[in-house]
Amino acid sequence: MHVVVNAAMSADGKLSSRRREQIRISGHEDFARVDALRADCDAVMVGVGTVLADDPHLTVEDPDLRAERRERGDSDHPARVVADTRARTPPDARVLDDVARSYVAVGETAPDDRCGALRDADAHLVTAGTERVDLAAALAELETDGIDRLLIEGGGELLFSAFETGVVDELSVFVGSQIIGGRDAPTLADGEGFVDEFPELTLAAADRLDDGIVLSYTVAD
Amino acid sequence: MHVVVNAAMSADGKLSSRRREQIRISGHEDFARVDALRADCDAVMVGVGTVLADDPHLTVEDPDLRAERRERGDSDHPARVVADTRARTPPDARVLDDVARSYVAVGETAPDDRCGALRDADAHLVTAGTERVDLAAALAELETDGIDRLLIEGGGELLFSAFETGVVDELSVFVGSQIIGGRDAPTLADGEGFVDEFPELTLAAADRLDDGIVLSYTVAD
Ligand SMILES: NC(=O)c1ccc[n+]([C@@H]2O[C@H](COP(=O)([O-])OP(=O)(O)OC[C@H]3O[C@@H](n4cnc5c(N)ncnc54)[C@H](OP(=O)(O)O)[C@@H]3O)[C@@H](O)[C@H]2O)c1
Ligand SMILES: NC(=O)c1ccc[n+]([C@@H]2O[C@H](COP(=O)([O-])OP(=O)(O)OC[C@H]3O[C@@H](n4cnc5c(N)ncnc54)[C@H](OP(=O)(O)O)[C@@H]3O)[C@@H](O)[C@H]2O)c1
Repeated sequence: MHVVVNAAMSADGKLSSRRREQIRISGHEDFARVDALRADCDAVMVGVGTVLADDPHLTVEDPDLRAERRERGDSDHPARVVADTRARTPPDARVLDDVARSYVAVGETAPDDRCGALRDADAHLVTAGTERVDLAAALAELETDGIDRLLIEGGGELLFSAFETGVVDELSVFVGSQIIGGRDAPTLADGEGFVDEFPELTLAAADRLDDGIVLSYTVAD
Repeated sequence: MHVVVNAAMSADGKLSSRRREQIRISGHEDFARVDALRADCDAVMVGVGTVLADDPHLTVEDPDLRAERRERGDSDHPARVVADTRARTPPDARVLDDVARSYVAVGETAPDDRCGALRDADAHLVTAGTERVDLAAALAELETDGIDRLLIEGGGELLFSAFETGVVDELSVFVGSQIIGGRDAPTLADGEGFVDEFPELTLAAADRLDDGIVLSYTVAD
């Protein structure tokens, strides 16, 4: 599976403020770029923290991009995937609506009642891991379902795990022209953090967009 | 006073790992760039957290840059300034050695014995603020001492205060090509963080250097 990570961060590396509300970091040009990234993928993944904070839809906005998907035999929208160990995704979350296929990756000990409520909302459950969703196993399972190209859109906890597990092939990050600050604000990669053997990236492109810049990296194997 | 901020951060916005040890984020080309920034300034400031973590020297390395300073009637090195409310700077810190003038900006309630030890080490004490050093007042005092151009090099706690106080005119940040991660790792701007009215920057230049990129911003008034 090919895994692309995309996020928008402030000039000081934050995905949001300490209040974890959605903040407009980029602009129209970047939204269009992300829309095209989504349209190129078989599924778009986020952590349950992002679902609870932002209730995103994760669909393709541009009708032309949807038409291109249909022409090549794909569904209008990529599938949505939530990494959600304890099945905390609200059954009425936008990410579970019926415009696209939805997966929730849960842990082995996720409560039955909450898993049942998610199945009732037509979510496809993938079970992998105990403490946290085992990303490598969950992605392998998604791959057997035909998901060959996955876009992970955040947040910082999930992205750290993705880098730690070594599944990321590409990273693109819009760097906005504002300071958000805050030692408790989410960053592009939170989690425990690395203390050595930092994942090495190669800067492939730097393109000015809106009032910021998109940095595109490939990840060393 | 004209205030320039410079730092090196990973692609995910970290100045260091959660262990707060000095990490090589940039390379030779960026070191030379920072050396030139220092040579251009009357003083270089850091927070006491950085002094305790890294024991930096904050001097100009390149003999040619030092010669240029001498030719225009300046000292070899800019002065060093530590923001250090409780006078915790070790009297044998490299930043207090005799190759350049040193200031320690302390709070009004800094212990007398520690202030005395700093004076014995030939540090010039500037007193401003109580809970934390009052940056605006400390900078005003430094300006009366002829410091018209100040470079602030970190860390994240001091930089947040600098943005919060509104003293920053320019920001340059080297974005390295690695992921450090860690919800507890220092970022370019920590502190409380903003929740609205985020300081707005203007991206003036983006220059590839070493294996990363330097983003140069001006700060809106
Ligand atoms: N600017 C952007 O591009 C952008 C993009 C996305 C989000 N955001 C912002 O980011 C914030 C949310 O980020 P976040 O870091 O708090 O949450 P997150 O990464 O979206 O979700 C983290 C949660 O996912 C669950 N999870 C399941 N398996 C995991 C695994 N293997 N590794 C890590 N987490 C796993 C964990 O909860 P369980 O243990 O309960 O499963 C964890 O707490 C919000 O403020 C949102 O606005 C910004
Ligand atoms: N990559 C880079 O470019 C770079 C540059 C510098 C540092 N670093 C890293 O950053 C880390 C240290 O950063 P840090 O954030 O812990 O420390 P810091 O910003 O260097 O120092 C913070 C301390 O300064 C004192 N201070 C005094 N007045 C202040 C004010 N008005 N606002 C804020 N702080 C004030 C406070 O201690 P008191 O209350 O006791 O005064 C505060 O705890 C280290 O890991 C270091 O390696 C990296």
